[in-house]
Amino acid sequence: MSVTLTIVTDPATRESRELAVTSGTTILRAAHAAGIDITAVCGGRGRCTSCRVKFVAGTVPPPTIMDEVQLGDDLVREAYRLSCQCHVTEPVTVQVTPPVDETAFQILGSGGGVARLGRIAIDSGVTKQLVRVELPREEHHQTSDVEQLLAAIGGDTSAVPASVLQTLPSALRDDPAGVTVTTFGGKVLAVERGDTALMKFGLAIDVGTTTVVTSLLELESGEQLASVSSLNPQSVYGGDLMSRIAFAQFNPASLRKLQTRIVGLLNRQIAAVCSESGVLAKWIYKVAIVGNTCMHHVLLGIDPSHVGLAPYAPVMRHPLVLPARDIPLRVAPEAQVCLLPIVAGFVGADAVAVTLATRLDESDELRVAVDIGTNGEVILGSREKLWACSAPAGPALEGAQIRCGMRGAAGAIDRVLVGDGVEVHTIGETEPLGICGSGLIDLVAGLLDAGAIDWTGLIQADQRDALPPRLRDRIVRRGEERVVVVLRPGEAGARHEIVLTQDDVRQVQLAKGAIASGIALLQQVAGVPADRIGELLLAGGFGNYLSIPSAIRIGLIPSMPLERVRYVGNAASLGAQACLLSEKERQRAEDIARRIEHVSLAAHPAFEDVFVGAMNFPRGGAHE
Amino acid sequence: MSVTLTIVTDPATRESRELAVTSGTTILRAAHAAGIDITAVCGGRGRCTSCRVKFVAGTVPPPTIMDEVQLGDDLVREAYRLSCQCHVTEPVTVQVTPPVDETAFQILGSGGGVARLGRIAIDSGVTKQLVRVELPREEHHQTSDVEQLLAAIGGDTSAVPASVLQTLPSALRDDPAGVTVTTFGGKVLAVERGDTALMKFGLAIDVGTTTVVTSLLELESGEQLASVSSLNPQSVYGGDLMSRIAFAQFNPASLRKLQTRIVGLLNRQIAAVCSESGVLAKWIYKVAIVGNTCMHHVLLGIDPSHVGLAPYAPVMRHPLVLPARDIPLRVAPEAQVCLLPIVAGFVGADAVAVTLATRLDESDELRVAVDIGTNGEVILGSREKLWACSAPAGPALEGAQIRCGMRGAAGAIDRVLVGDGVEVHTIGETEPLGICGSGLIDLVAGLLDAGAIDWTGLIQADQRDALPPRLRDRIVRRGEERVVVVLRPGEAGARHEIVLTQDDVRQVQLAKGAIASGIALLQQVAGVPADRIGELLLAGGFGNYLSIPSAIRIGLIPSMPLERVRYVGNAASLGAQACLLSEKERQRAEDIARRIEHVSLAAHPAFEDVFVGAMNFPRGGAHE
Repeated sequence: MSVTLTIVTDPATRESRELAVTSGTTILRAAHAAGIDITAVCGGRGRCTSCRVKFVAGTVPPPTIMDEVQLGDDLVREAYRLSCQCHVTEPVTVQVTPPVDETAFQILGSGGGVARLGRIAIDSGVTKQLVRVELPREEHHQTSDVEQLLAAIGGDTSAVPASVLQTLPSALRDDPAGVTVTTFGGKVLAVERGDTALMKFGLAIDVGTTTVVTSLLELESGEQLASVSSLNPQSVYGGDLMSRIAFAQFNPASLRKLQTRIVGLLNRQIAAVCSESGVLAKWIYKVAIVGNTCMHHVLLGIDPSHVGLAPYAPVMRHPLVLPARDIPLRVAPEAQVCLLPIVAGFVGADAVAVTLATRLDESDELRVAVDIGTNGEVILGSREKLWACSAPAGPALEGAQIRCGMRGAAGAIDRVLVGDGVEVHTIGETEPLGICGSGLIDLVAGLLDAGAIDWTGLIQADQRDALPPRLRDRIVRRGEERVVVVLRPGEAGARHEIVLTQDDVRQVQLAKGAIASGIALLQQVAGVPADRIGELLLAGGFGNYLSIPSAIRIGLIPSMPLERVRYVGNAASLGAQACLLSEKERQRAEDIARRIEHVSLAAHPAFEDVFVGAMNFPRGGAHE
Repeated sequence: MSVTLTIVTDPATRESRELAVTSGTTILRAAHAAGIDITAVCGGRGRCTSCRVKFVAGTVPPPTIMDEVQLGDDLVREAYRLSCQCHVTEPVTVQVTPPVDETAFQILGSGGGVARLGRIAIDSGVTKQLVRVELPREEHHQTSDVEQLLAAIGGDTSAVPASVLQTLPSALRDDPAGVTVTTFGGKVLAVERGDTALMKFGLAIDVGTTTVVTSLLELESGEQLASVSSLNPQSVYGGDLMSRIAFAQFNPASLRKLQTRIVGLLNRQIAAVCSESGVLAKWIYKVAIVGNTCMHHVLLGIDPSHVGLAPYAPVMRHPLVLPARDIPLRVAPEAQVCLLPIVAGFVGADAVAVTLATRLDESDELRVAVDIGTNGEVILGSREKLWACSAPAGPALEGAQIRCGMRGAAGAIDRVLVGDGVEVHTIGETEPLGICGSGLIDLVAGLLDAGAIDWTGLIQADQRDALPPRLRDRIVRRGEERVVVVLRPGEAGARHEIVLTQDDVRQVQLAKGAIASGIALLQQVAGVPADRIGELLLAGGFGNYLSIPSAIRIGLIPSMPLERVRYVGNAASLGAQACLLSEKERQRAEDIARRIEHVSLAAHPAFEDVFVGAMNFPRGGAHE
């Protein structure tokens, strides 16, 4: 039985083709039979999302398990399906995803909401081509395999690294179809037997002090196939940058330990994203890496001792490209690892990537990007000028060094409402185990509003009478210590008591003080009052789960209309992705690094005053 | 008490200075005190030969143990002494060795005897300079260590490899004297704390199928400080090239075994030459390597499978320069390892090095160089044209695959005189243990002259009556086997019988046949009869101990006047040394490789006839 399948091949012009297909055929197979290009990176096994189509007429079939796993709830709801998994049984119209030459990588532009205004043309610099190489047949020749290869592809012998030569003879002779040659900037990265031209992938890696994120992208379409986030295993040697530098300082063996840990983690993450997506690691030819100066240096095995000593000189700042075997990352040995440039000892490649992803450098109005993290950074500027400073919040906002703190994992209290009593929400809605950063900020904001903490940060254990009765019992003194009992055993399913101590409040004050004074000082250097800041962008994995009203309430960011503050997710990682997919963007990163003026907080004459002021909370509690 | 020391500072002009020195002062110390430059690479500890002087008037003092160890018998006899070890006690006149800017590396030129006609100007391409680097003092800076370094030495960031950056910060800060920067072709190879500008060394390595020679040279003077020769440990996987290729063929694990063995040996040899000379391995910045195509490929981990299969295509032929860490050799990580170019699958970088060292390419008359070895090569030509072919003699001439054969070590019979009986000489004049290649050739030549072997190679066990009585008893049949008893137990101190079998003679015939037919065929291709060959040069470690009359007698080389045949030692290693010391010579090697026309013996129509003819011995025995 034959049914009509209509495929919109060009979403822009609505150009389409009608196919008569046998009922039960998959959309992918029908399209390929009719000569319509739909990319199927995993070979039609439901292991990636590249063959997805959108149903625009007819009954949208129920999602398969593969649709749900690969596409996620949002795309499934928007009528996307994997064409390799979807069998045609009645007349339907589907639209292909934009063809390769029109695809563009969506990036965080300026403007309101979650708009995706900025678009970049994909141009990773990695090319693959299938070639047939003529080999000598007579004994009386004077040539070699590599000379014959170069006769087919052009270029000279310096373009072919020794590691590619190692397996060249078998590659050239094993498959009558020929070999697939991968190049980048005139350099030959790999020669593979047979036709593997469609297999072209890259990694964007964000090495944070606390969190490391590795994303696998298809280089032709820009599609993200997998992403994994892990705790930086160097944390056992120190939670923040300074303690980690101190560990490695003047001790090559300790530096080696830090380096081994991060390289080991990256290789485990690479194995994970490859396994999840069905991509072979040898098909990964480009890697873009961002990170702060210390993480950058340690990854390369560069002594970071002096990054931690005044005047905090980095060893290098320029963008670096080196083969993966030099680190070593377990991808194609000659894969080009591109490390983004650095601005200063404490304004690293991550700040450059955040600027790139948020397009601060192209903005007409002055905007601020705040990358919240253990070693945060603040960037302020527009197309005219860019300033940046470090804002070392420490690990408190990630739940570390807090009595009942924890990272944002299942069981973490991530939302708190302080009313008559205390209501909490946990990640995964399970038994509460501790408080993560966003919960901590909500909690402190609520306690400030309720008057249970005053503007200096003091827990009001001596003025409990002014508090609502059900809150009153929670504000207690235990010996010398002032404590807020957030949950008693049994409350909200908690097995143990969960508290906020006076020390915890001080840690939050230090953290938010660092960021707030960073913002304030850049404003001062640039001569920009808060009302002239067009937009404030909160970046960092953390930023995505942060309540903006709470952040303003505790003074983490200045008081601004809520519509002028927005989340931009992990902008450092997005900046790395942009550089992975576009050589032009990578060039832009270099320009940005050169343009950013580094402002040294500690060296600024106003720093002491600003910082002490920023440590306090904004007034406006119940009794102020 | 003061004595007069006269130092001839310029041997050419006989310019000299008279110094009044305290009796007992060393010549080196007195010279330095007077501002006369005498290089003392080891710091005056008698660990090298760089400070040697020659006594030209006054009593030559008896040699110290250091003189004997470092300078050797010949130089000691010629009145050379180490100036650091020699105390002045009476008036003497010494002559310094030529100053650095006039030194030249002596090489085997054309012309008679052991003349050293060719000279090359030293220009290794490696430079070292002491620089002081300005570091930032204020926190509010935007620079980095590497940018400050480049401000001092010039160049851009691409000149500094990541491995140099790793230890840059401590190097820049640890010594007030500054840092010593080593460069090669605009690339920074090392940055060392303090002043190490005088420490500049390199290695010349000849990787033979059977023997591997590594020499350590001082790059400024060209002086050889140490040299070590070892058996190639790959031999356990096959004595000749073809069996070794067969071992690795289509088996990456076996290839890896071969590679690991040679890299391991080279690193042991490097440790040995460094230890012998007192040079630190990190001061070795350049390495020149020669070897046949298979040894070259295996060292780089390049699959040699197809080098052993018709049409014997090498994977690469171009000269390659890569950092030592890529192999890895344990010298300076960024030391430039220069592999000489290759001509064809069986005419390797060793043939290029032999051509370079013997200056065949600059010769007015046609000359022949024969590199004798398991995988030998023959090169014929002049400045007009160059031809080369392989001459795979196999290991017989190195004593392998011979019943009582052994390598040229102590106890090996290296000279044989066949007269009324058999007289032998052994290396080290110790108890005879076996026969090495040169003894084998003497023995066969003598037996041919005596008529004990006929021109077809048959041992004359059935015609013993015509032989001298004392020889007659030695030519026997044992069952089916014809045997020459060279030594009976007790003769010349031998504990066991030493024999030459009919099979041994056949092995010698195969070996000499390969070389002789290589020479004959090149003559035929070039249209050159033997009387138009100006000179025949015998190269190879073996060639140094070979009797030329015996070689001619057995037909290893064509019959020529003895004065037109000469030994040139290990010319492949000398060619590597030339490329180590001179970038111009390394460029010449490239030109030579391009100019040599590869002649494929087996593919030549005349090969069968020539080879069968060359297998026989020249007629002229007692009964012919």
